Amino acid sequence: MHFHKLISDLKESGEGKIVLLVSDGIGGLPLQPGGLTELEAANTPNLDSLAKIGVQGLSTPIRPGITPGSGPGHLGLFGYDPLEFIIGRGALEAAGIGFEMRDGDVAIRGNFCTIDSNGNITDRRAGRIPSDESAKVVEKLRAIKIDGVEVFVEPVKEHRFVVVFRAADLGDAVGDTDPQRTGVPPLEPIAHDDASKKTAKIASEFFSQAKRILANESKANCLTMRGFAHKPHMPSYKELYGLKAACIAVYPMYKGLASFAGMELVGKPATLQEEIDVLEKSWADYDFFFVHFKYTDSRGEDGNFDEKVKMIEELDKIIPRITALKPAAFVITGDHSTPAKMASHSFHPVPTLIVSDLARTDTCEKYGEKYAATGGLGHFEAQYLMSLALAHAGRLGKFGA
Amino acid sequence: MHFHKLISDLKESGEGKIVLLVSDGIGGLPLQPGGLTELEAANTPNLDSLAKIGVQGLSTPIRPGITPGSGPGHLGLFGYDPLEFIIGRGALEAAGIGFEMRDGDVAIRGNFCTIDSNGNITDRRAGRIPSDESAKVVEKLRAIKIDGVEVFVEPVKEHRFVVVFRAADLGDAVGDTDPQRTGVPPLEPIAHDDASKKTAKIASEFFSQAKRILANESKANCLTMRGFAHKPHMPSYKELYGLKAACIAVYPMYKGLASFAGMELVGKPATLQEEIDVLEKSWADYDFFFVHFKYTDSRGEDGNFDEKVKMIEELDKIIPRITALKPAAFVITGDHSTPAKMASHSFHPVPTLIVSDLARTDTCEKYGEKYAATGGLGHFEAQYLMSLALAHAGRLGKFGA
Repeated sequence: MHFHKLISDLKESGEGKIVLLVSDGIGGLPLQPGGLTELEAANTPNLDSLAKIGVQGLSTPIRPGITPGSGPGHLGLFGYDPLEFIIGRGALEAAGIGFEMRDGDVAIRGNFCTIDSNGNITDRRAGRIPSDESAKVVEKLRAIKIDGVEVFVEPVKEHRFVVVFRAADLGDAVGDTDPQRTGVPPLEPIAHDDASKKTAKIASEFFSQAKRILANESKANCLTMRGFAHKPHMPSYKELYGLKAACIAVYPMYKGLASFAGMELVGKPATLQEEIDVLEKSWADYDFFFVHFKYTDSRGEDGNFDEKVKMIEELDKIIPRITALKPAAFVITGDHSTPAKMASHSFHPVPTLIVSDLARTDTCEKYGEKYAATGGLGHFEAQYLMSLALAHAGRLGKFGA
Repeated sequence: MHFHKLISDLKESGEGKIVLLVSDGIGGLPLQPGGLTELEAANTPNLDSLAKIGVQGLSTPIRPGITPGSGPGHLGLFGYDPLEFIIGRGALEAAGIGFEMRDGDVAIRGNFCTIDSNGNITDRRAGRIPSDESAKVVEKLRAIKIDGVEVFVEPVKEHRFVVVFRAADLGDAVGDTDPQRTGVPPLEPIAHDDASKKTAKIASEFFSQAKRILANESKANCLTMRGFAHKPHMPSYKELYGLKAACIAVYPMYKGLASFAGMELVGKPATLQEEIDVLEKSWADYDFFFVHFKYTDSRGEDGNFDEKVKMIEELDKIIPRITALKPAAFVITGDHSTPAKMASHSFHPVPTLIVSDLARTDTCEKYGEKYAATGGLGHFEAQYLMSLALAHAGRLGKFGA
């Protein structure tokens, strides 16, 4: 039996609310072996007092040793096995700019490139033209008209943009047109199944019109298309868990990922404090709240250990505002580790704390990697975090008699 | 490769005997976060001295967050993934009263109900008639004769009973006849595949005859049928593990579950002391002994923390009688947790201790949830407990050269 069928069968309605606080990339590494991680070095009295009454463990985002991007990292936290539910690049890029895809849409990641007079690519990234220049070129592409198709073209960053085709019966099995090398022209978009032939034809038409429009650009005089993708097919939070779910996030990528799971995007917070304002104001209206804090990841990516420590301490300060709401299950975790030492996402498992009246208190005195490694939740795959959260909130029935 | 094929390929005969002592629902919760569980609060000198030389871990009965019923809970302990080996309700109910199903039998859970003069259900449970009254009505149903079919009708409790059809070629894909609401008549039994058409026809004939027999009953004047089910198809202990296995249990449900795995039901013990008497007497005759102790679960279900503590202390007292037999692997665990705080089964993982000359002793000083969380067995799914037991008893060969 698929785990999702089991969970969906066992879900129960209830009063208990769940808060999933995701501190992006919170897991870290000591700068020197034997030292303290960012989280262990941080002064976190509020988190530590929760650790004393809650239960901790280490969450493996995907499988041991695997470093996740934000997409698979969050899918795991939301209860979808990231090896089963794959988000195509186009869809992820669309999510990243907050484009709300509909079922049936095909999203594509576009790259501006430079071609020579023979039509061969000389620069696959069009000299990484600045975002503001690129946005102007994107604007020109909006003139493209294709019969029976709604076409969206949206800027992302530098040479990158998103194209979305909206029409009936569009398959997404179309090959990339980026040849992955210079000295050759972009490839034709090729359909890999019958259902995608219409999509390939539309992409071909889009490319022809774009090429004429871009002909006089100095750098961005051509484009390639990659990662043709539908919105991922995922059962929603409502179907799976019976939860009315809210996403409270600042950045578009996380809103997009949450919307794939059927969460409602609530408020327009710009800071952590404003996110908690939104949480408080919408407390009565939802069963589940995904609250996303970005800056632990950002400072980790910067390679700045001390600043990441500070961000963790900022997070600690708002904890009492959440506990004051008395969630039935309060889950504190991250989508992956981002050790400042590596200045990148990493494979290390993520310290995860559940506070609940049903938590079986363990021996952990603080919230942190060392403690989590010996905690009562053990080491578990992130895809099981939601069933643990539901169980701790009294929202799952018994399996079998 | 399926894990069962691996185990079956690697099984070796040997002299080492295995005792699987299941203290039903032994895992618990502190009454207040930060306090002690029932097991941690109990005075268990014998179990604690075993903890010092054995190896402990936390067993997850199904998957993280899932609360098991007794059926899936025990299937896991016996080495069958409870998400792969599903026991239908009818078969579980038959097991629960100790009815020995044969391959091909179809067991059904029957409910007496009350219908009005229009044939519409007015009470789906026939006023929960007392068990002794119900047993008399069941007796009347034994008059039902169907050509070519052996029909068994057995009382369970209150309005519940079991029907078993024994004949050749009976599929079990037949829909429930309980409409799950009042004001309508029972449904017709509908076959969901060709192989089950004969079963549906028999069920229909059974229902017609029963209706005539019950017509004059004041409450139980009709019935519904649910959970049509074959005996689960499970490889036996002999096939899988090469073990001649004994079940020593007081309650019929656990005997039924053990018999699904091909264990022999040994003795008729009525108390824990008598169970250990049976164990001693039959020691020479079997390789494996499943010993079931019920009352840790019962007192947990009662919500009685102190009485559950006492039951754990009772269990502790008989431990020396088992160690005196010198099993090669002595496994102490539960099928799930039943915290008195929740007065029900729960999802919390189960402290599990293996004592064996091959146990790699860990740092655990006592037997209990907190210790098990840091033990040498780690956190594992219950379905792997049997391979651990076999290995600790020297009964599994090497995989590959």
